[in-house]
Amino acid sequence: MSFDDTLDPALRSWLESANAADTDFPIQNLPFGRFRLAGETASAWRIGVAIGDQVLDLRRAGLIEHGDMARLMSASASVADRRALRRAISAGLREGSAQRATFSEALLPQAAVQMGLPCEIGDYTDFYTGIHHATTVGKLFRPEAPLLPNYKWVPIGYHGRASSIVASGQDFHRPLGQVKAADAEAPVLRPSGRLDYELELGIVMARPNALGEPVPMAAAEDHVFGLTLLNDWSARDLQAWEYQPLGPFLSKNFASTVSPWIVTLEALQPFRAPPERPAGDPLPLPYLDSPYNREAGAIDITLEVWLQTAAMRRAGLAAQRLSTSNYRDAYWTLAQLVAHHTVNGCNLRSGDLLGTGTLSGPQPDQAGSLLELSLGGQQPVTLANGEQRRFLEDGDSVILRAYCERDGHRRIGFGECIGTVLPARQLEGAT
Amino acid sequence: MSFDDTLDPALRSWLESANAADTDFPIQNLPFGRFRLAGETASAWRIGVAIGDQVLDLRRAGLIEHGDMARLMSASASVADRRALRRAISAGLREGSAQRATFSEALLPQAAVQMGLPCEIGDYTDFYTGIHHATTVGKLFRPEAPLLPNYKWVPIGYHGRASSIVASGQDFHRPLGQVKAADAEAPVLRPSGRLDYELELGIVMARPNALGEPVPMAAAEDHVFGLTLLNDWSARDLQAWEYQPLGPFLSKNFASTVSPWIVTLEALQPFRAPPERPAGDPLPLPYLDSPYNREAGAIDITLEVWLQTAAMRRAGLAAQRLSTSNYRDAYWTLAQLVAHHTVNGCNLRSGDLLGTGTLSGPQPDQAGSLLELSLGGQQPVTLANGEQRRFLEDGDSVILRAYCERDGHRRIGFGECIGTVLPARQLEGAT
Repeated sequence: MSFDDTLDPALRSWLESANAADTDFPIQNLPFGRFRLAGETASAWRIGVAIGDQVLDLRRAGLIEHGDMARLMSASASVADRRALRRAISAGLREGSAQRATFSEALLPQAAVQMGLPCEIGDYTDFYTGIHHATTVGKLFRPEAPLLPNYKWVPIGYHGRASSIVASGQDFHRPLGQVKAADAEAPVLRPSGRLDYELELGIVMARPNALGEPVPMAAAEDHVFGLTLLNDWSARDLQAWEYQPLGPFLSKNFASTVSPWIVTLEALQPFRAPPERPAGDPLPLPYLDSPYNREAGAIDITLEVWLQTAAMRRAGLAAQRLSTSNYRDAYWTLAQLVAHHTVNGCNLRSGDLLGTGTLSGPQPDQAGSLLELSLGGQQPVTLANGEQRRFLEDGDSVILRAYCERDGHRRIGFGECIGTVLPARQLEGAT
Repeated sequence: MSFDDTLDPALRSWLESANAADTDFPIQNLPFGRFRLAGETASAWRIGVAIGDQVLDLRRAGLIEHGDMARLMSASASVADRRALRRAISAGLREGSAQRATFSEALLPQAAVQMGLPCEIGDYTDFYTGIHHATTVGKLFRPEAPLLPNYKWVPIGYHGRASSIVASGQDFHRPLGQVKAADAEAPVLRPSGRLDYELELGIVMARPNALGEPVPMAAAEDHVFGLTLLNDWSARDLQAWEYQPLGPFLSKNFASTVSPWIVTLEALQPFRAPPERPAGDPLPLPYLDSPYNREAGAIDITLEVWLQTAAMRRAGLAAQRLSTSNYRDAYWTLAQLVAHHTVNGCNLRSGDLLGTGTLSGPQPDQAGSLLELSLGGQQPVTLANGEQRRFLEDGDSVILRAYCERDGHRRIGFGECIGTVLPARQLEGAT
């Protein structure tokens, strides 16, 4: 495979922080996000690109004339247009660029800006592509048949809540909900006692498809802008009681956290990989199959979950890594998700978000949720400072991280996706 | 109960068509919708109120200064503001009104305008409040335990798709999807062979609640703008294969149809009724209970499903009524849906839509879906022209209607919610 020169690992920026070996945002990455300065209102989001420890304001750099991310990602911004924009950003940030003066004036320190959601999200769909997660969780409920018969045929998904998707760094209160103990006659309303995180990637849609017009596999990736980190917070006790027969609802829609930067498919090009479909598994139906998908439908992205408890914060201890996994272990590729989602004519709009589902690896310590790490809450996880966790406690901060590394290529990082659990609120008027 | 004078049954309009006994839109109704004239673009929706066979353009009548329904429904439009607007509209349309000349110039025949979705819909949630539907459908799958143990405690709901909600009159193609025969080893991709309608009401949210701030029962109805008709088209064969473990997805999100007029809670005030919770059923948990809800939480709305097949259209035959039911038979009230949806802190925004779920009555011929009328497809329904239906055929038009009638009050109607099934499309690139 040959790559366009924005991916050349020898490329260096005149901005020194972009050349550091451990930066998430070298000149080969160039992820998109929305930011504002202190005191600016929510309507004044600006579009920026992360470079080293700075943000490039695209309008101030003269590259776009608006601050509307949906417009940037929509039909008018075709794949060719997006690539042209990427090349222009790359050219201006390179060592020796004639635009250095202009671009320098459009830089702001990341530490000085507030990042919002990377775009307005119309609809949010959550898939279930983590086969190891599905198997482990299935075992907790159905030891004899952990994976349901449809799993290897249907990219299982369901609709989530768009209104309660929050930007990284926005904390949320532990949700109240109905909980029913196995031996109780009736449920009670109480704060969730089994609050969990879910390590996911979010797929951000660019070009929309019209209602009634499926997107075939060959075109599916042209409709995708890029990937974010996604934490699909889950209240397991609420979920167990409410989810039959129509799926998860209040156990999920109290908050979901998205990282600020959309890493584009262009930046991820060097890390493509064949999907690992075990021998003996059924082949995908034709509408979920393509030569490109068989060869390079997956992406090699290392994923990490970190935890910092309130006690760790008080003691000055850094966050501790709970698990590492890889997006390659997902059963369905992102192109398959788009093709499946639209095969019935469902329309995806610019800015719609598709969650991958929890991305756990095949080993027990590669689990993307506490439900799995603690074997359904039976086996607490012991932290380095001696604390134990079956599920999340108030004050816990969960940090998701991700990066791509491959010999001969610059490291591409996703930044962080962070959220902290605040105590449950008292319910007004409830007794 | 006493009502404000906009509900006085003696009230008459200077517009004669509004005084007809059988109109859906007497001066006591005044439902809100969005319309445009032929040639106007989608961005130019105007806000109108239905009166008799006309639409009152609120901006031309000098009542509002914009065409933004979300703004009209949002926080700035408090319940008091909404009632003031209703009184102003009612005053101008009354016999003897000094504003007759101004309002006359703001009228357009309903037959001459195109109605859109009544508002931009952010998130769409579908509930499952039709206990007779849940019981009948449950029997098809679990004869021994049709209602799951959570049903009488939890207002069961799940998230649906907002992007594919279409205005009444917009047709849609029969969806393709994976279907697996019970005796087949593998699923196939094919057009749904068990396409169905679902008779629902849609609850349109007005005042938003902030993330993390539950809406208690006492305030729940202040957050609701009004009700529409809603047809939640469903592909039963896709649903059966895909829905475990996360709920319906492609079987529902190819299209949902909403009627153009939002009938406000103010107009429905004379038709309030106590919810019918059978003796012996558990009392609602405190967060789902209120004195007002016990007294008048339900609404007496007659609901009808009509079918016109392609053969009936060709023969000049009118649509045939398939069933009649009533919203009073829902197990959970709209206030309970709002209180439950937000109890975990989930935020509802202006224009969000909550579906009631299929509203079937206790008798077999009061079923709100063909799945129920045909006993899961086993017993075809014979139409007056001799045709039979187990599920919908291409060319079938389904029309939902609803109205309130009560002695001493003017009839309040909902208009129509109509959609026609077009043949499935060929899938590009599929083999």
